[in-house]
Amino acid sequence: MAEMGKVAIIMGSQSDWPTMQCAAKVLEELEVPHEARIVSAHRTPDRMSEFAKSAEAEGFKVIIAGAGGAAHLPGMVAAMTHLPVLGVPVQSKALSGMDSLLSIVQMPAGVPTGTLAIGEAGATNAGLLAASILGTSDTAIADRLKAWRAARSEAVAETPS
Amino acid sequence: MAEMGKVAIIMGSQSDWPTMQCAAKVLEELEVPHEARIVSAHRTPDRMSEFAKSAEAEGFKVIIAGAGGAAHLPGMVAAMTHLPVLGVPVQSKALSGMDSLLSIVQMPAGVPTGTLAIGEAGATNAGLLAASILGTSDTAIADRLKAWRAARSEAVAETPS
Amino acid sequence: MAEMGKVAIIMGSQSDWPTMQCAAKVLEELEVPHEARIVSAHRTPDRMSEFAKSAEAEGFKVIIAGAGGAAHLPGMVAAMTHLPVLGVPVQSKALSGMDSLLSIVQMPAGVPTGTLAIGEAGATNAGLLAASILGTSDTAIADRLKAWRAARSEAVAETPS
Amino acid sequence: MAEMGKVAIIMGSQSDWPTMQCAAKVLEELEVPHEARIVSAHRTPDRMSEFAKSAEAEGFKVIIAGAGGAAHLPGMVAAMTHLPVLGVPVQSKALSGMDSLLSIVQMPAGVPTGTLAIGEAGATNAGLLAASILGTSDTAIADRLKAWRAARSEAVAETPS
Amino acid sequence: MAEMGKVAIIMGSQSDWPTMQCAAKVLEELEVPHEARIVSAHRTPDRMSEFAKSAEAEGFKVIIAGAGGAAHLPGMVAAMTHLPVLGVPVQSKALSGMDSLLSIVQMPAGVPTGTLAIGEAGATNAGLLAASILGTSDTAIADRLKAWRAARSEAVAETPS
Amino acid sequence: MAEMGKVAIIMGSQSDWPTMQCAAKVLEELEVPHEARIVSAHRTPDRMSEFAKSAEAEGFKVIIAGAGGAAHLPGMVAAMTHLPVLGVPVQSKALSGMDSLLSIVQMPAGVPTGTLAIGEAGATNAGLLAASILGTSDTAIADRLKAWRAARSEAVAETPS
Amino acid sequence: MAEMGKVAIIMGSQSDWPTMQCAAKVLEELEVPHEARIVSAHRTPDRMSEFAKSAEAEGFKVIIAGAGGAAHLPGMVAAMTHLPVLGVPVQSKALSGMDSLLSIVQMPAGVPTGTLAIGEAGATNAGLLAASILGTSDTAIADRLKAWRAARSEAVAETPS
Amino acid sequence: MAEMGKVAIIMGSQSDWPTMQCAAKVLEELEVPHEARIVSAHRTPDRMSEFAKSAEAEGFKVIIAGAGGAAHLPGMVAAMTHLPVLGVPVQSKALSGMDSLLSIVQMPAGVPTGTLAIGEAGATNAGLLAASILGTSDTAIADRLKAWRAARSEAVAETPS
Repeated sequence: MAEMGKVAIIMGSQSDWPTMQCAAKVLEELEVPHEARIVSAHRTPDRMSEFAKSAEAEGFKVIIAGAGGAAHLPGMVAAMTHLPVLGVPVQSKALSGMDSLLSIVQMPAGVPTGTLAIGEAGATNAGLLAASILGTSDTAIADRLKAWRAARSEAVAETPS
Repeated sequence: MAEMGKVAIIMGSQSDWPTMQCAAKVLEELEVPHEARIVSAHRTPDRMSEFAKSAEAEGFKVIIAGAGGAAHLPGMVAAMTHLPVLGVPVQSKALSGMDSLLSIVQMPAGVPTGTLAIGEAGATNAGLLAASILGTSDTAIADRLKAWRAARSEAVAETPS
Repeated sequence: MAEMGKVAIIMGSQSDWPTMQCAAKVLEELEVPHEARIVSAHRTPDRMSEFAKSAEAEGFKVIIAGAGGAAHLPGMVAAMTHLPVLGVPVQSKALSGMDSLLSIVQMPAGVPTGTLAIGEAGATNAGLLAASILGTSDTAIADRLKAWRAARSEAVAETPS
Repeated sequence: MAEMGKVAIIMGSQSDWPTMQCAAKVLEELEVPHEARIVSAHRTPDRMSEFAKSAEAEGFKVIIAGAGGAAHLPGMVAAMTHLPVLGVPVQSKALSGMDSLLSIVQMPAGVPTGTLAIGEAGATNAGLLAASILGTSDTAIADRLKAWRAARSEAVAETPS
Repeated sequence: MAEMGKVAIIMGSQSDWPTMQCAAKVLEELEVPHEARIVSAHRTPDRMSEFAKSAEAEGFKVIIAGAGGAAHLPGMVAAMTHLPVLGVPVQSKALSGMDSLLSIVQMPAGVPTGTLAIGEAGATNAGLLAASILGTSDTAIADRLKAWRAARSEAVAETPS
Repeated sequence: MAEMGKVAIIMGSQSDWPTMQCAAKVLEELEVPHEARIVSAHRTPDRMSEFAKSAEAEGFKVIIAGAGGAAHLPGMVAAMTHLPVLGVPVQSKALSGMDSLLSIVQMPAGVPTGTLAIGEAGATNAGLLAASILGTSDTAIADRLKAWRAARSEAVAETPS
Repeated sequence: MAEMGKVAIIMGSQSDWPTMQCAAKVLEELEVPHEARIVSAHRTPDRMSEFAKSAEAEGFKVIIAGAGGAAHLPGMVAAMTHLPVLGVPVQSKALSGMDSLLSIVQMPAGVPTGTLAIGEAGATNAGLLAASILGTSDTAIADRLKAWRAARSEAVAETPS
Repeated sequence: MAEMGKVAIIMGSQSDWPTMQCAAKVLEELEVPHEARIVSAHRTPDRMSEFAKSAEAEGFKVIIAGAGGAAHLPGMVAAMTHLPVLGVPVQSKALSGMDSLLSIVQMPAGVPTGTLAIGEAGATNAGLLAASILGTSDTAIADRLKAWRAARSEAVAETPS
């Protein structure tokens, strides 16, 4: 498993962790190696550059980046790496994450961020999409992902109660 | 090159093609095999199911899905495959693609769509992100992507005119 | 009453039931037969297809579908049946149901969903509209609906207190 | 065919006709009897009341009402009839129909309007939904609707061009 | 004072009263005669018509109408009277009153509603504007309004604490 | 007629005149005396103060104020006069008048502006509402207003064409 | 330090102080002289004019103005001074500060307000930007600002916990 | 004049220049030295870092940064300099600059960008605010700014035509 691609989970602030740990949790369930770090675009821009530029060499294959408000982290990391970057809009206080969403998804042509839903659902889905991406070349991950989803589908009740 | 993963570019309607061909164009430039098809969630739901369920067997590794308005195609395909699905919100007439965006990005936990920007920039970026995903296991694609982006960065003028 | 058309109340998740039971409640009051089921577009797409395609044969005459966020259930069911489909946008956490509303109402030409208000009022009204639809050919239902509404109008106080 | 339920297509103004005639057109194709009238909630409120209260006696079974801006026509007619009322938000100048949509769809519990998409797609779909409603008790209409939709599905091309 | 114009405060539902009583309160302070009534556009449309058509004869000179969601009361009353109608958008649950605001303010040319802010501030201001309107021909009211506002301005502290 | 209350039509800029002249036009038709002036809150704040403070003495009874974007003119004039102030949100370039609307309507408790619809319809309606206000004490104006509206209602066609 | 430029922190109401004191707090930390005052555009327009016109003579070099809803204070002060004016949109009840933001930022060409984020983050940042502006000519302030920001960057943890 | 602080006008793309040249134009009129450069956050992130870190040493005192869509340039430059940064949201195609505005203004506490209006008015105002900032320590600039504004106020016509 040492050679399996790792997933980086980065976020702008400690306060994003309650959201972003949903990504860690699902990657844990799927046995996908991952690391979580705080990398602030605005408070630690150099740390961000270093992270983005060395992510490939560090063995990361996918980067999940969460941020709220004027959320620049996903797009700026995407500007400095060729790895796939998935963005999670953290729900913001005043505008409920609509600012986070637009700041992440509306990237100009040339630098993509694959954006997920606002908040915890988005963080969980970022983990799943990262696994799906790794699964394009790692059948063991793909198989665990299929099993995870099948179990979840089977758990849907027939009738509400 | 026969073994290289193909990218599917699907869309709900012929009218989405002027937008979605931006994805095809950039994949062409990056020499990534791809196929474009019309698969309507609403008018041809069975064709959609068949496509989604056989996509992996057909050799597709990434699916790019574009749709506008109540844009269900990306999320529904994502519900029926384990491949990574990238969603492109096509700009709609009345609401300028805000409906398309929310219909694609706000997926519930469990079924992700990696969403790009509204319109042509989003379609181009879907192509780039698909290449980036394939590049996680195909260094030739990764190298071409790096070159593509480097050339683009070098083309930025110093001063406006 | 065995021949009376039944109303299906479907929803994407158990968590939609507190909203959707308002539809069941009003149909109960109007003595219209109905059944509630969980049918998830994203987690159980095949169950959804089966439901939609067999709904007419099962004796349903109207389908009420509730979902939140990227709410694909009403539109996808509408794509696979000729029965009238009424959509209820469940209030979502971050965007208060604006995403649910646009995902349901902005259907392309060809596949309609009759959309009601966000949340519980919408669910109640979906029940009433379903009764109204059945009432176009069943005068007993129409009469009970008229009585229900008349009673409600009479209950409006003259002055606030 | 004389006994078949008629569909009323009403609108607030002559300027809504370019949108609303899409409803007339599809009803024409489906051979469903229909009549179009201008009934303004704001300029001719008495005509509106008379229409709403006599619609059932006039032989109408479904009412399609289109209006733009502060669009009160669908909800007010729904307040005065027990027939199903379908609302079409006409695209407004400044706010692109978002005002029309919210004015029509956000009805309080007790008085439903089944709302369709903003603009021409919504008008077409109102016609289709009206046919679907009549089809719950008129198999000839249901059969023509099925054929209409099947033909439309078959017309979807395989690939964009 | 018997000849002084009265102000009507109408609302669609008992649940609007906590908001609308702010209008009553300020009219009380300004010693402007007023009456509050529940007049629902959707549940009691005939009561609404009767109210609107007889308001002038009843001695009302200004009508304040509050409603939430698809808020039709102000505009519909304005359609049936030549008295000035002031609209108060009551804060709605899902959309925070944005639906109420647009439903009230976006009236078509020909039928005006003078719209105030969403919620309690708007209700207070409707009372003040009604007094201001009566003050155009009643100097006693105008004088009391001036005094009310002057007292309020003087109450503004110099520094926050 | 010299003693009749005049209506002031003020606006922030010459560019608002194509919108605001709709107010002048309808006042013309109703034979209500009015004057139009450019009074910019931002470029000529002192002229604005002078206008607002002397408006009553100048013989104005109602003030119509139109502005776009961060539209401060209606609210600031309302802060300096006890006359009724009606606000017209001029349609802005980027945000289509949503900024104008919110800047005008969302006034805090204490200082009301009666706000009309965005753009030309709002300007026409401001003229009508001003006439209605004057009509509360001037039966000649009230009669002309009734006639104007009756003529308009009669002009509504029965069927679209 | 007596000659150092002072910063004015003004706000429309005592209720804005919990937000605006964040500006005072950061200026305190940076040892930048400042004064907080309540200056209401709507309730004390003359006090506002006097403040704006005498601010330069009073020794203020930068003005921070916070307001909510139809937030006219920043723009109106900017209209009457040549000092830099920074606007803080206070979070409003119904619309979460979107009204405040648009009312402050969408100023017409000619009268700028440098607008910060909605709420407390915006107030803190207004203090920082004011220090930054003074720092363009006062190296002691600039040095303290650099130290403040460096300390803050160093405080960012490496990993979430 | 050599010692006068220069203003940098940076933008993400050549396509922003039609907007941003309004800033250059007004600085020209005010005889404030300035330089315009293309510095893309996404395509040339290293150039951006170098620019931001050396801006003070290059003699810049204020930075005006314009960008559209997911507009990261102003905030990222602000993260790497202690100079005041003014942000101009360039009007974007699909969302009319609402995405640009939120991406620029909603910065987290610690890193401010003084944000101006969307589009050309914002660019002009960024130039004026930059001059105003320089004017806090340069009376010649302050005087020219006062004259510029006075001339503009005098140019306001009395009546529309």
